[in-house]
Amino acid sequence: MKAIVLIMDGLGDLPNAKGQTPLSAASKPNMDELAGQGQAGLYSSIARGVIPGSDTSHLNIFGYDYREYYPGRGPLEALGAGIELKPGDIAFRANFASVKGGKIIDRRAGRLPTATSRKLARYVEKSRIDGVTVQFMNTVEHRGVLLFRGKGLGAEVSGTDPHVLGPLGVSKPLAPGAKNKKTADVLNKFTKSAMKKLEGAGETRGSRVPANAIIARGAGAYAVVPSMEDRYRISAACVGGGALYKGVAKYVGMDVLEVEGATGDKKTNLKAKADAAAAALKDHDYVFVHVKATDNFSHDGNFGGKKEIIEKVDELLVSKLMEEEAVFVITGDHSTPVERRSHSGHPTPLLISGRGVRKDTVSRFDEMACMSGGLCHVVGTGLMDIVLNEMNKAKMIGT
Amino acid sequence: MKAIVLIMDGLGDLPNAKGQTPLSAASKPNMDELAGQGQAGLYSSIARGVIPGSDTSHLNIFGYDYREYYPGRGPLEALGAGIELKPGDIAFRANFASVKGGKIIDRRAGRLPTATSRKLARYVEKSRIDGVTVQFMNTVEHRGVLLFRGKGLGAEVSGTDPHVLGPLGVSKPLAPGAKNKKTADVLNKFTKSAMKKLEGAGETRGSRVPANAIIARGAGAYAVVPSMEDRYRISAACVGGGALYKGVAKYVGMDVLEVEGATGDKKTNLKAKADAAAAALKDHDYVFVHVKATDNFSHDGNFGGKKEIIEKVDELLVSKLMEEEAVFVITGDHSTPVERRSHSGHPTPLLISGRGVRKDTVSRFDEMACMSGGLCHVVGTGLMDIVLNEMNKAKMIGT
Repeated sequence: MKAIVLIMDGLGDLPNAKGQTPLSAASKPNMDELAGQGQAGLYSSIARGVIPGSDTSHLNIFGYDYREYYPGRGPLEALGAGIELKPGDIAFRANFASVKGGKIIDRRAGRLPTATSRKLARYVEKSRIDGVTVQFMNTVEHRGVLLFRGKGLGAEVSGTDPHVLGPLGVSKPLAPGAKNKKTADVLNKFTKSAMKKLEGAGETRGSRVPANAIIARGAGAYAVVPSMEDRYRISAACVGGGALYKGVAKYVGMDVLEVEGATGDKKTNLKAKADAAAAALKDHDYVFVHVKATDNFSHDGNFGGKKEIIEKVDELLVSKLMEEEAVFVITGDHSTPVERRSHSGHPTPLLISGRGVRKDTVSRFDEMACMSGGLCHVVGTGLMDIVLNEMNKAKMIGT
Repeated sequence: MKAIVLIMDGLGDLPNAKGQTPLSAASKPNMDELAGQGQAGLYSSIARGVIPGSDTSHLNIFGYDYREYYPGRGPLEALGAGIELKPGDIAFRANFASVKGGKIIDRRAGRLPTATSRKLARYVEKSRIDGVTVQFMNTVEHRGVLLFRGKGLGAEVSGTDPHVLGPLGVSKPLAPGAKNKKTADVLNKFTKSAMKKLEGAGETRGSRVPANAIIARGAGAYAVVPSMEDRYRISAACVGGGALYKGVAKYVGMDVLEVEGATGDKKTNLKAKADAAAAALKDHDYVFVHVKATDNFSHDGNFGGKKEIIEKVDELLVSKLMEEEAVFVITGDHSTPVERRSHSGHPTPLLISGRGVRKDTVSRFDEMACMSGGLCHVVGTGLMDIVLNEMNKAKMIGT
């Protein structure tokens, strides 16, 4: 049996004054039908009450315990941006920022448009510092990836992005050793040289504040890990828009499909994603479908927007995919309550449905109804084990 | 309070087209009554979604974490066959096979009758190879146990049973070290010499294919482990027919009772087992009762047979034992869905009933009803802790 695993980012929420969450308020007949046919429960992707990051949660969803496999955010973003990494490469998340008198006055350089960002990137895209090849690649808007390739580099360093306005950060080793010191040195030298180069690039700024610096964070060393095919004997594909999610998928060996209109934001083309997922199911055992917009609306504190995107996912995506002969799994990577506008440690609702799945008494898919579900509370990498078992691909322990 | 722990092997199943499992379709008023009086839940003997073997699952049921205590299948089978083991002994599961031109043409030598097997075993029962005493003992039909006793033997070796038809396997060390190499050498020499000896035993074959080889698998080194009495301060007894289950019971220090008619198969005498368990309860705190036939019917894909044996267990065994003043625990070691004809990672239904046990809302004992039970999802060795607590034999942590 094949599996479709739909992750609605930040799906879980908290009840408002009327006792409703965006999910419970939404009209979503297809998800409710799946819940009615199969089993429901709750899912905590890291541990109960712990707030998952987007990277660690997805590793755990795919059965890769983040405590063993998490390479840091940088390499995952780099992979998601389509950059080929080699073992030992050090990658950072990086972005254009505005600096004045040594202080960051805008961490996103006025959310620089992608076209401008692309032009500016040419000034700093490749350099060689202390024998290390340094590459900067812009991605979406002000964002990009910074890559160090060379011998003797460590990943345990602080970034130059202080995460708040104020003095530009200076990278420091976070653990002893010449390797970490070297990485920090190269990053600090790159930061200075990039500021000089960008100063001369003023004519292409196109932003109300100068895009005159590159700040970096999330250092990580890339290493090859066993693929899902190696570990589970299944072929897997990813249908998603956001770079991070594609990066995690690539890291664990999924085929990352490029879907026109899958933008990783609120305007994503859900119909195109449904078609791509259905097509992927023909030659893959496990199809991961990621929808980011639920999380975006949560971060904006937009209850109505989150409710509506859930309704659209139900109408355009779930309705089509539930016709497939496959185990259908729907959950979130974490909760992002609209009220908090940030990730939380509350579990997300979970459903597993399909032919041969035992049926519980739950017939609605939301945070409250799922509490009575037969799956009880699933935690961490345990979800992958349960999905593999429903696919009849689980391993036996003992004889 | 004493405890009766009834394990119906491979009990859990998946719903058929009508939404029924053998257990939910069965008429089993006594189990339902126990469920109604006590608490229900689900049990995964290894971990959720993971497929348990028969050996590892029973170790965990008795609270012996298989990751620490699993000695391999060989020693457990040997103990179950009534063989006295000494620490350091290497034991294998072994059986007669038919070999032609170096290739296995029948892994069971036509399911050799036990009487013939007994005669043939005399030809190969004892030898001395490289200073190691090698013993072969037949058990049921084509099956037997191979035992190496001597100094400097390791257990990390592959067997000679390739598990498929084709070339006879050659044992190889699976880890470095002279000890493993020695065991592999002795096994390979035994295999050759046994073939020679069996060639001269043609007149007693009594099978349509020649029983001219012995193949071995499941190597393990025996070590003494603390008994249940040592660990929990309870006396325990086993009422079961299958050699493996008796072996695990003996390994953890239970008194293994010989019950006439407890055959470990579909013809087992359930009434005799009920009488034996009731008698054992007089001088034991914990009585483990094992019924294998549920699993056998599952492996045959026989829904009706599994349903009927559950009904018989209810009528002949549960009805009698529920009269005893004891905590009554009923579950499976794993699921063996009739449709899959093999073990699966789905949880099994679980009930714990008896005087003083809290009561939940579940009043039926099956895979679906138990999802709503007060025990939620019990995993691994956790079941033993819960049972010990109901027996008022649990340990305090702290003061």
